[in-house]
Amino acid sequence: MNSNPIGMFDSGVGGITVFSELVKEFPNEDIIYLGDTKRFPYGSKSKESIIELSKQSTDFLISKGVKVIIIACGTATSQALTELRKIYNIPIIGILEATVNEVTKENKYYKIGVIATSATINSKAWETELKKKNNNIEVISRACPLLASMAEEGWIDNKVAKYNIHEYISPFKEESIDKLILGCTHYPLYINLIRKELGNRIDIIDTGKMLRKYLRGILEKKKLLSADNNIPKYDIYLTDTESKFIQVANNLLQNENKIFIEKIKKI
Amino acid sequence: MNSNPIGMFDSGVGGITVFSELVKEFPNEDIIYLGDTKRFPYGSKSKESIIELSKQSTDFLISKGVKVIIIACGTATSQALTELRKIYNIPIIGILEATVNEVTKENKYYKIGVIATSATINSKAWETELKKKNNNIEVISRACPLLASMAEEGWIDNKVAKYNIHEYISPFKEESIDKLILGCTHYPLYINLIRKELGNRIDIIDTGKMLRKYLRGILEKKKLLSADNNIPKYDIYLTDTESKFIQVANNLLQNENKIFIEKIKKI
Repeated sequence: MNSNPIGMFDSGVGGITVFSELVKEFPNEDIIYLGDTKRFPYGSKSKESIIELSKQSTDFLISKGVKVIIIACGTATSQALTELRKIYNIPIIGILEATVNEVTKENKYYKIGVIATSATINSKAWETELKKKNNNIEVISRACPLLASMAEEGWIDNKVAKYNIHEYISPFKEESIDKLILGCTHYPLYINLIRKELGNRIDIIDTGKMLRKYLRGILEKKKLLSADNNIPKYDIYLTDTESKFIQVANNLLQNENKIFIEKIKKI
Repeated sequence: MNSNPIGMFDSGVGGITVFSELVKEFPNEDIIYLGDTKRFPYGSKSKESIIELSKQSTDFLISKGVKVIIIACGTATSQALTELRKIYNIPIIGILEATVNEVTKENKYYKIGVIATSATINSKAWETELKKKNNNIEVISRACPLLASMAEEGWIDNKVAKYNIHEYISPFKEESIDKLILGCTHYPLYINLIRKELGNRIDIIDTGKMLRKYLRGILEKKKLLSADNNIPKYDIYLTDTESKFIQVANNLLQNENKIFIEKIKKI
């Protein structure tokens, strides 16, 4: 048993989609969330810069006494996870491995679409990890530059958002994919628009949802779960003063969590 | 006479539109350009963060021995210029004052549209400075979030760029403006698309072009011009490894400058 908080970081507000899943899965866990809004976006930056920024976030969370670190950012996962694990002893979990495990559980042929930032797509991280576990899988990757920026801007359902989602997503229909992985934690904000483009036949995979069971397994195995009677505390830290963070985060969260989001601290 | 270089900084590639004007105006001046691509974009950040980043850029340029600093970034001009002038003794010139001087030269009534980043529009910097010099001017401001990000991404003429420009610019037509100020140095990249929306009747103002004569006046007055026989040297520094910088910058520059852009250094 370990009552220290779960730590998580993202480049901005996107990781709140993961935060919201963890709040539901672990009602007795304290969570510290760090949004690096001052340096957002990560998706257009170099690997070198993303590693440097991810180290800074990891150091901050460790200084707050977290027991595990979730990289709630697709770009930081694909660019920095391997490097961070070399440096730190604390368990570090990215958003990729849980989804890869789940998708490759049955050794079937699938045609899988992946959307993510340019940095993630260029790294071929999803393709490499998926094929390592199941070489029958066919992967069609597509970078969606600006989609995370649109989310941070709070453009979830306006005309520009709809147009851009159509441009990014409609080719997947012709490519007859079976599943679409949302490889950036900002993208679940667009799940309704994406669903409209793809119809109901194609399975849309939210990495935050995949992470729930996977993280439970790890916390149980390492005896890191908090006591059942712990009343959870949520701390949100941002590296810049919040602009649209609260508005966008609240769109994402159930009513009961909104109150915590109001207590944002700037570091 | 002073043969030290002119220093200039921007959040990314946008300031290259200003760089290209200065190269034409001052064929004997060395120029050092710093693009803070690692922290791009500035337009969605807080005033506090933008001041901090602008100080870092100023310190870097001063360490390189520049004789004057051009803030080739609309956001940094509106958020940080006043603060920087309090701290540093070197002449610092933003992209706002030259344009304001030019537009208010004749004390006429004008309806002026301004497009810029959210930070710049929220600061009301353009409106305040224009009305200070000519209270008859009517200003209609509109933030164009993501437009600078589109430019950094190299999306100059694709479908998404065209659609977004239409969304941002078309309302100005109904508002019957006389002039449109491009209040962010990334926006001249879209001048053709903007011209298509507005037609030829409306004067589109590129702040880089306005800066040329204004800067000449300052350099002459302060005796800071280089010798007429100086063979110019151009140094481009970026805070992140370049991704699309060369491609976008080269779109903007005449052939003779392209060779200099290839010699980019990462700091």
